[in-house]
Amino acid sequence: MTLSMYQASIPVFIRVLGNLSKILDKGFAFAETKKIDPGVLINARLAPDMFPLSRQVQIATDGVKGCAARLAGIEVPSYLDNETTFPELQARIKKTVDFVNTVNPSQIDGSEERIVTLKVRNRELTFKGQPYLLHYVLPNLFFHTTTAYAILRHNGVEVGKLDYLGNPE
Amino acid sequence: MTLSMYQASIPVFIRVLGNLSKILDKGFAFAETKKIDPGVLINARLAPDMFPLSRQVQIATDGVKGCAARLAGIEVPSYLDNETTFPELQARIKKTVDFVNTVNPSQIDGSEERIVTLKVRNRELTFKGQPYLLHYVLPNLFFHTTTAYAILRHNGVEVGKLDYLGNPE
Repeated sequence: MTLSMYQASIPVFIRVLGNLSKILDKGFAFAETKKIDPGVLINARLAPDMFPLSRQVQIATDGVKGCAARLAGIEVPSYLDNETTFPELQARIKKTVDFVNTVNPSQIDGSEERIVTLKVRNRELTFKGQPYLLHYVLPNLFFHTTTAYAILRHNGVEVGKLDYLGNPE
Repeated sequence: MTLSMYQASIPVFIRVLGNLSKILDKGFAFAETKKIDPGVLINARLAPDMFPLSRQVQIATDGVKGCAARLAGIEVPSYLDNETTFPELQARIKKTVDFVNTVNPSQIDGSEERIVTLKVRNRELTFKGQPYLLHYVLPNLFFHTTTAYAILRHNGVEVGKLDYLGNPE
């Protein structure tokens, strides 16, 4: 199959969010087994001025729904960013996967040159579709997924590289 | 420009390694300013059973040279994995960028179905080119780059998201 904008986005997103969901499952199970308030993990950070676990998941899903919608030229779904528990974060991931599953290859393919604008911290960024996906969306998605993983592993959760990668073959 | 295997690999690799190089520069400058042995950062980890900073950089560059060579059907360059200082890690990044710059679009494009095999921890993995790039190489590259960033930020180095992303527009 020839590489396309759809292939390089939606199936990657679904896979990454599925792996993130399983990593969060391990975090939740760890808190239950160790009788730790799950909120301790939800609010854990790698540095005082980095975002906590909950926000990492929110931003990862934001990037995915934003990219799918912008490349397809449809409205970006708005979420409240009010998740404070593992089940709520899982629901957010599921909602995001359900949304991107509604986007078809015909809506995404050919979007290499499509102009995409977004606001980040009061600044407007303008991209063409291809660099938006390759140099902004994917790096961001993996950044926040890896940081979520690292927050949990730093706190003792037994997650490993294969949880992050899934079965890549 | 239509998305191609080359576009989704080599320019992404060069960009990510360039950003990683700048992040390491900030780590080195931090050690000098604070009069900390740079080896403390080079050997820092986010968890006792995670790899230290030096190994994160080695694996990130391994993934890049391996992917460029395997998709192009040429021999993977072999590195010694003996870097213990910031200048040595920077030299490894430069060597990797110089190598992937020798690989042309004509060698990579059309490699979606090319069979790629590699050994990971005594196990042989077999991929087609497209899932190898999208579901293995890119997630790994961003994983180790993000972890390198997080190790430094966890230790007080003032790196921010824009150091990781570069200027994405």
